[in-house]
Amino acid sequence: MAKALVLEKAGRLALRDIEMAETLGPEDVRVAIDTVGVCGSDVHYYTHGKIGPFVVNAPMVLGHEAAGVITEVGSDVTDMGVGDRVCMEPGIPNTRSKAAKLGAYNVDPSVQFWATPPVHGCLTPSVVHPAAFTYRLPDHISFAEGAMVEPFAIGMQAATKAQLKPGDVALVTGAGPIGIMVALAALAGGCAKVYISDLVEEKLSVAAQYDNIEPVLIGRDDPSAVVRDATEGWGADVVFECAGAATSIQTALDAVAPAGCVVWVGMPVDPVPVDIVLAQSKEIRMETVFRYANMYDRAIALLGSGKVDVKPLITETFDFENSIEAFDRAVEARPTDVKIQIRLDRA
Amino acid sequence: MAKALVLEKAGRLALRDIEMAETLGPEDVRVAIDTVGVCGSDVHYYTHGKIGPFVVNAPMVLGHEAAGVITEVGSDVTDMGVGDRVCMEPGIPNTRSKAAKLGAYNVDPSVQFWATPPVHGCLTPSVVHPAAFTYRLPDHISFAEGAMVEPFAIGMQAATKAQLKPGDVALVTGAGPIGIMVALAALAGGCAKVYISDLVEEKLSVAAQYDNIEPVLIGRDDPSAVVRDATEGWGADVVFECAGAATSIQTALDAVAPAGCVVWVGMPVDPVPVDIVLAQSKEIRMETVFRYANMYDRAIALLGSGKVDVKPLITETFDFENSIEAFDRAVEARPTDVKIQIRLDRA
Amino acid sequence: MAKALVLEKAGRLALRDIEMAETLGPEDVRVAIDTVGVCGSDVHYYTHGKIGPFVVNAPMVLGHEAAGVITEVGSDVTDMGVGDRVCMEPGIPNTRSKAAKLGAYNVDPSVQFWATPPVHGCLTPSVVHPAAFTYRLPDHISFAEGAMVEPFAIGMQAATKAQLKPGDVALVTGAGPIGIMVALAALAGGCAKVYISDLVEEKLSVAAQYDNIEPVLIGRDDPSAVVRDATEGWGADVVFECAGAATSIQTALDAVAPAGCVVWVGMPVDPVPVDIVLAQSKEIRMETVFRYANMYDRAIALLGSGKVDVKPLITETFDFENSIEAFDRAVEARPTDVKIQIRLDRA
Amino acid sequence: MAKALVLEKAGRLALRDIEMAETLGPEDVRVAIDTVGVCGSDVHYYTHGKIGPFVVNAPMVLGHEAAGVITEVGSDVTDMGVGDRVCMEPGIPNTRSKAAKLGAYNVDPSVQFWATPPVHGCLTPSVVHPAAFTYRLPDHISFAEGAMVEPFAIGMQAATKAQLKPGDVALVTGAGPIGIMVALAALAGGCAKVYISDLVEEKLSVAAQYDNIEPVLIGRDDPSAVVRDATEGWGADVVFECAGAATSIQTALDAVAPAGCVVWVGMPVDPVPVDIVLAQSKEIRMETVFRYANMYDRAIALLGSGKVDVKPLITETFDFENSIEAFDRAVEARPTDVKIQIRLDRA
Repeated sequence: MAKALVLEKAGRLALRDIEMAETLGPEDVRVAIDTVGVCGSDVHYYTHGKIGPFVVNAPMVLGHEAAGVITEVGSDVTDMGVGDRVCMEPGIPNTRSKAAKLGAYNVDPSVQFWATPPVHGCLTPSVVHPAAFTYRLPDHISFAEGAMVEPFAIGMQAATKAQLKPGDVALVTGAGPIGIMVALAALAGGCAKVYISDLVEEKLSVAAQYDNIEPVLIGRDDPSAVVRDATEGWGADVVFECAGAATSIQTALDAVAPAGCVVWVGMPVDPVPVDIVLAQSKEIRMETVFRYANMYDRAIALLGSGKVDVKPLITETFDFENSIEAFDRAVEARPTDVKIQIRLDRA
Repeated sequence: MAKALVLEKAGRLALRDIEMAETLGPEDVRVAIDTVGVCGSDVHYYTHGKIGPFVVNAPMVLGHEAAGVITEVGSDVTDMGVGDRVCMEPGIPNTRSKAAKLGAYNVDPSVQFWATPPVHGCLTPSVVHPAAFTYRLPDHISFAEGAMVEPFAIGMQAATKAQLKPGDVALVTGAGPIGIMVALAALAGGCAKVYISDLVEEKLSVAAQYDNIEPVLIGRDDPSAVVRDATEGWGADVVFECAGAATSIQTALDAVAPAGCVVWVGMPVDPVPVDIVLAQSKEIRMETVFRYANMYDRAIALLGSGKVDVKPLITETFDFENSIEAFDRAVEARPTDVKIQIRLDRA
Repeated sequence: MAKALVLEKAGRLALRDIEMAETLGPEDVRVAIDTVGVCGSDVHYYTHGKIGPFVVNAPMVLGHEAAGVITEVGSDVTDMGVGDRVCMEPGIPNTRSKAAKLGAYNVDPSVQFWATPPVHGCLTPSVVHPAAFTYRLPDHISFAEGAMVEPFAIGMQAATKAQLKPGDVALVTGAGPIGIMVALAALAGGCAKVYISDLVEEKLSVAAQYDNIEPVLIGRDDPSAVVRDATEGWGADVVFECAGAATSIQTALDAVAPAGCVVWVGMPVDPVPVDIVLAQSKEIRMETVFRYANMYDRAIALLGSGKVDVKPLITETFDFENSIEAFDRAVEARPTDVKIQIRLDRA
Repeated sequence: MAKALVLEKAGRLALRDIEMAETLGPEDVRVAIDTVGVCGSDVHYYTHGKIGPFVVNAPMVLGHEAAGVITEVGSDVTDMGVGDRVCMEPGIPNTRSKAAKLGAYNVDPSVQFWATPPVHGCLTPSVVHPAAFTYRLPDHISFAEGAMVEPFAIGMQAATKAQLKPGDVALVTGAGPIGIMVALAALAGGCAKVYISDLVEEKLSVAAQYDNIEPVLIGRDDPSAVVRDATEGWGADVVFECAGAATSIQTALDAVAPAGCVVWVGMPVDPVPVDIVLAQSKEIRMETVFRYANMYDRAIALLGSGKVDVKPLITETFDFENSIEAFDRAVEARPTDVKIQIRLDRA
């Protein structure tokens, strides 16, 4: 039994003891959790009790963005040790599946992902995790930053799928937390300039604190026109659609350059009309993103080198005891809140 | 003045004299046309007078799938000579445009394309064309086959964009002329097996005469299920969507494997709902196709080696004098008609 | 204890009982071996007792090209059953290694590969193997063909690394067994035509029995010149260097087209002078090949569809009892011998 | 007749009048040259009178790294105007060649390249150039920076060929001007960290003034070991070999990670032994670089955004009148000299 933040059912959280798997396999590590970020999906399970086909039918521990310290290693683990500061990839695939053998372990249908029913998450003082999906943090990277690796990895996956070339100009539609993560990854990944569009000025102001991220306030400016003006009429080499709305999907296809790329990151609730003929007329490539694979070490390298600074995006930190308060704050969805984190009380 | 098949306006064709450009530039060749295929777009201009933004506002010569013999070469042309048997790429881009410099000359917005208003086509005894977009035919390839290079090049573009790997399994949705061209290119381009689906059995029977093209009759069989059964549940490595219908677009996303690719070839009349979340859940790549670039020499190489045989797809050939009859036959759209051709009377 | 073909030390083989691992793990299958091909590396261990850093310091069972029938499945194996006809990938990586997570499990330094010291091979009636690296054969594919999947997979890896496009023209330097496998994979993988060069006419005659594989006898013809003549001076889109000799390495760089690709398949004994400036002047890409990853299912699909026929390459088959004779025949290296196989006596 | 810096023959420069092409074609612009950088190849023609097959047999104007102001535009030029501040791509390909149609216009064998015999360079007050290979500079980018676009474009080409992914770790061997350009492009193009190795500490000190470029002094440290230490033993995702020496070529193959990439930028005088088997054992990809294509706009975008700052690399500037002095200084090859520039006297 361990204390954890448990989603009892839609709308009801409890900080209580619950049975957690504790057996350490030979290739596992045990990690004392220090910091956990609150993700939009955690919040959505809290408010709705489900995401698509994933339904919370039994109490489930929330949280999947975590960093901590190794307290025990399995007998076959040779490259990590007790005391190592780490963060963890929350999805555990079958590494012998066809998808995993291809390098796309994120789309292995049998993946077990923290805080996706019926799998427990990590808002609890200690977890057992495969060493292969646990990554060491540089000394100068805090646990709070380490817990940001997970959302940043989504941005990294999007930037990697785009196959950015040095000097690309990109547009990100939607300045929510994921849009900002994508913008940072795109900039670190080679873009000369990243435009980011949103309807809400406060969100844009968070993004705009970074050099070379240029805000476009929809309503005042047209993102396609802004990008075209900046590129002698050519358009964005890459558009990252992160809003999931019908209008931004159309914007993505409008703004992208001939032979360019649109990465579909945002998840529309329902199928959305897509102007395939417009896409064809420019012969664009379209990529999709599902979480991430092989991104943690790259994400950590960029944080470690200082090329990417996620600290300004950590809006507020709550104690474990106040986890429910943290979630209620996240439910508010204040436009300038990017990331709410919870700090566990490591004795 | 030259005799030509002229589309006067929607619904009215005339075989009559018309003013054609005849000046031979230093980098041009003059070609006596032997054979011209009738394309769906030619027919659509005939029946509707327009395709999307392209409207026939003045009499226009039809035809863009052509082969013939060089009768004169410009002063700077050194690699071709009088008497060479050739086929011609119907789009002439500005090769100094940004798109062309990138190798994507097909998406150069300033491209001039035969039989796309207001540019005249090639259903006339002689045309002038840039040598750079004129390609020699092997001796054993007939003009009729040479005139098939154009539609086959679309299939080649689709197969190339897919980045096929040897041994891929593909699904083609839609067994019309383009679907069959795509299936042949996919098979020549590395697929072990190509499934092709359609609602019309006669169309499938044309496709099924080729080894390793497997017909799937919609209504009797579900294309996704057939492909999944054939791949131990994995799905098609690549789906070429060639029908442009809402149902086949959904089929494409259903049938494609994790980390697979959908190539959007078919052109839906209006924006169609696309299940982006389904695409994301498998993290697929989506490619689009706009005509072709750098495909003619590859297409000719495959015809020349005998790996691809397009002769069974030439359903019927009309004399130039009977061009209007040829078009009226094409308008009928008989399910087993793949390609109607017109043979010019080279004296 | 099981009977096996044991390499006692360089130059000495014995067909005798030896201790083999027999424990069936939950994710393993047990396979009764039917056919095993003799590979050049097996022969090299026999004649030299080592390959590079891999030295035979203790008796080792030879053989790694095998097909057979499943006789038992581990408790977690759900997609295979007793009686399934299969072939096996001889390298077993750590699927949780960094290389494997990236999809390149073949370059995982910890890979255990059959008949590579100190790992035993499969020339023995029964082996235990991970189900994840065991692949079902279609009913109409014989065990003899199934045992050819391994060498063919090398050709497939080379063809896949080349990123062939439909209609490519390729040159293969060296018409030994691997050269022929590469030529077949390149042809199946999209080439219109594959030229293959060798000093020995008999070897070329084996390759030339296939359509669209064109032999070039070095001494009589210059491979670069032949390829250039066939491509209007452009050169080969891809050259697969399979001879590993200094002259053929130079030929590869001479024959390849601007912006083309050379795949280094042959393994020169010592570092060889490479004309990097010549490679740069055409800005070619160069790929290397190390065994294969994710190729077995693709290779089987191409054999199953009939697009690739390896049967003509199986030169002679020996009984298990005559295994040593089979190896002595392989040592002869007759120019028309492509593959010598050994058939086990499945009761 | 125009005044120009003329290489009369090896070892003899003259600042004198010479006949230059001055006819402005319809697609050309005339540019008043402001600044010209001195390139290693200019210096080599000065000292040796030839580079490989390119021999100075007649007086030739030097210089190919230039920026200036448009003074006249051809009749068909619509996207540029008099007064525009620009830099020029010094190679003019036949854009209708096969290579150019493929997007690889840099490897068009018919390319005309400034200051490559017998083509005159641009160390003269005014040149005529195709608008398609002339690129506008942002207002805040100086002509001196504009003249750096050419060498930076080589770094960009290398970084682009590498297909960098965000967070890669790279090693650059050789801290000469090109090595530094490559390091900057690699960093801008997505690397988290770039190690750069050289035998000469002063050269490294120039490189090391940039964040995340880490110097490795050969003799004191082993570049492979340094990179391996920094990557938990994995190696460099990409190695850019910029020294062209046998030892650094071996270092490149040693230091690169499994499934990594080596880009051959340095040009060894003679063929160099390459350990192909070592390359194969890690199944690396190798890319080569020949000048650049489609890099100028990307390079300018990165300078314009401030992500790349080349100003610290402009060591000293000479007046046009002192051009010969500038070349004699460049011949000295002082280790801390990165770029010597010549400023023309625009009246």
